[in-house]
Amino acid sequence: MLFDKVCIVGVGLIGGSFGMALRERGLARHVVGAVRREETARLALEKGVVDSATTDLLEAARHSDLVFMAPPVGQMASLCAQIAPVVRAGAIITDAGSTKAQIVEDCTPIFAPESCFVGGHPMAGSEKTGVEAARSNLFEGANWVLTPTSDTPPPMVDQLLKLVEALGAQPLLMDATEHDQLLAVTSHLPHITAAALVHLFAKSKNENELAQHLIASGWRDSTRIAAGSSEMWRDISLANASSLTRSLNEMIEELQRVREMLAGEESDELLRWFEHASHERRKHDCSPRDKSHGV
Amino acid sequence: MLFDKVCIVGVGLIGGSFGMALRERGLARHVVGAVRREETARLALEKGVVDSATTDLLEAARHSDLVFMAPPVGQMASLCAQIAPVVRAGAIITDAGSTKAQIVEDCTPIFAPESCFVGGHPMAGSEKTGVEAARSNLFEGANWVLTPTSDTPPPMVDQLLKLVEALGAQPLLMDATEHDQLLAVTSHLPHITAAALVHLFAKSKNENELAQHLIASGWRDSTRIAAGSSEMWRDISLANASSLTRSLNEMIEELQRVREMLAGEESDELLRWFEHASHERRKHDCSPRDKSHGV
Repeated sequence: MLFDKVCIVGVGLIGGSFGMALRERGLARHVVGAVRREETARLALEKGVVDSATTDLLEAARHSDLVFMAPPVGQMASLCAQIAPVVRAGAIITDAGSTKAQIVEDCTPIFAPESCFVGGHPMAGSEKTGVEAARSNLFEGANWVLTPTSDTPPPMVDQLLKLVEALGAQPLLMDATEHDQLLAVTSHLPHITAAALVHLFAKSKNENELAQHLIASGWRDSTRIAAGSSEMWRDISLANASSLTRSLNEMIEELQRVREMLAGEESDELLRWFEHASHERRKHDCSPRDKSHGV
Repeated sequence: MLFDKVCIVGVGLIGGSFGMALRERGLARHVVGAVRREETARLALEKGVVDSATTDLLEAARHSDLVFMAPPVGQMASLCAQIAPVVRAGAIITDAGSTKAQIVEDCTPIFAPESCFVGGHPMAGSEKTGVEAARSNLFEGANWVLTPTSDTPPPMVDQLLKLVEALGAQPLLMDATEHDQLLAVTSHLPHITAAALVHLFAKSKNENELAQHLIASGWRDSTRIAAGSSEMWRDISLANASSLTRSLNEMIEELQRVREMLAGEESDELLRWFEHASHERRKHDCSPRDKSHGV
């Protein structure tokens, strides 16, 4: 048992799966879920993802020695400010937000020095959302970023490392800004380009309705993520604006380079450009679908 | 029976599947495959995709009343020039190339007026390549673009429409340039952006090896097609350079617009931008995987 009372703020897919995994692995004496709607409390209890659930945030957080923050990213700091006075002295507060630098900057001073905020990002998810989709093995084999600062007490980092490992995930320690820069490249920019491709397609379809008959699996794959939650991606983009802007600049430069190669009919250069991408992408195959390289 | 002797030039996935479908549906008296390697001839016969196969292009094409050209796009015009003298007077020559304007411009005068070239693009494919992957139902339910010109004799267009329908595909008549403009948006640009995303990732990984631990299914989906054949995509990009350049310009403008929204913290505008893309993308869901909108 790693913790006494764990409070999960926001019991959806991630928060719910975290609760289930804690309970199944016996990592906490008591797991309480703080939810916004009675309906979610009922569902969470029914599914057994928490020991108790309440819409009373302060009651849920009171005397917790671990708080797992999994609300929409935009509500993170204000919820932290509300619970800070009631958590146990020495408590660890961590989160599941998709961006880190702003959250760590906002939330760290709220708790210091009595308790301690350590940013986190479990790199797990599912196509489904909500507590109904929670499962106790969601984090097994996943990477889980932790972003302690130089002020984070080492025993608290150790405690979180133990927790992440006990959940079957792989902890990755890095700086919050480093996380955001890398995620801009591996996640946020791909989302923007997918959405931009859909915008271009929509314009094209407005000019010529035949366009919709000419989409194939390549288009579907490369634009699939554009169908995701608009609010979440708006929040992520704004929260990571500076790294994302840098990545957008690099992407624009790369596309300009391709435009130049086409204009100059640089056949060999263009071939090398495609080869480099193909070679690099194949290194990161992991699913049968990846190995298909669909057309 | 729609044709007497059909010659298939290039018996890979597409050519092989075409032959199988013709034979299974009894659409031709004799189907001959023109191949480059004896090994392919053996495999094609073994699999029953053709009635006969030979490395002798002229023997294969001689007296054909339909030629289906499915070689690498770069070889199309020179192969057409070779077979033109030997095909039957009044023969129809069509192709399976992924770009159309250049091919139609190059190949049409080679055959006119004794026989007739009509550009085609069966929008079917598979993750696999080669005659081994051929299957008789590859074209069932697929869209099949045909690009006759104002000079194409209407009975030849009718004959090809009958053929496409007999194969279970949906014929789409359009102008070759129109095809290339639309495909730039629905296929060629997505391929370029996927490859560009991989280039950015490779750079990022060179600077920080942690990057490779931060890729998730969204990145995998949006970059999957970048693993495809470099030669094919180089050829397609050069063959469709003008439409692709126009699409690249629009893509760059779209990304610049996002950069401006981030710089101006235009939260509502950004939300609408994501919403429009999400709404549009969901209209084109068709696979269970699409409906998942993976993270």
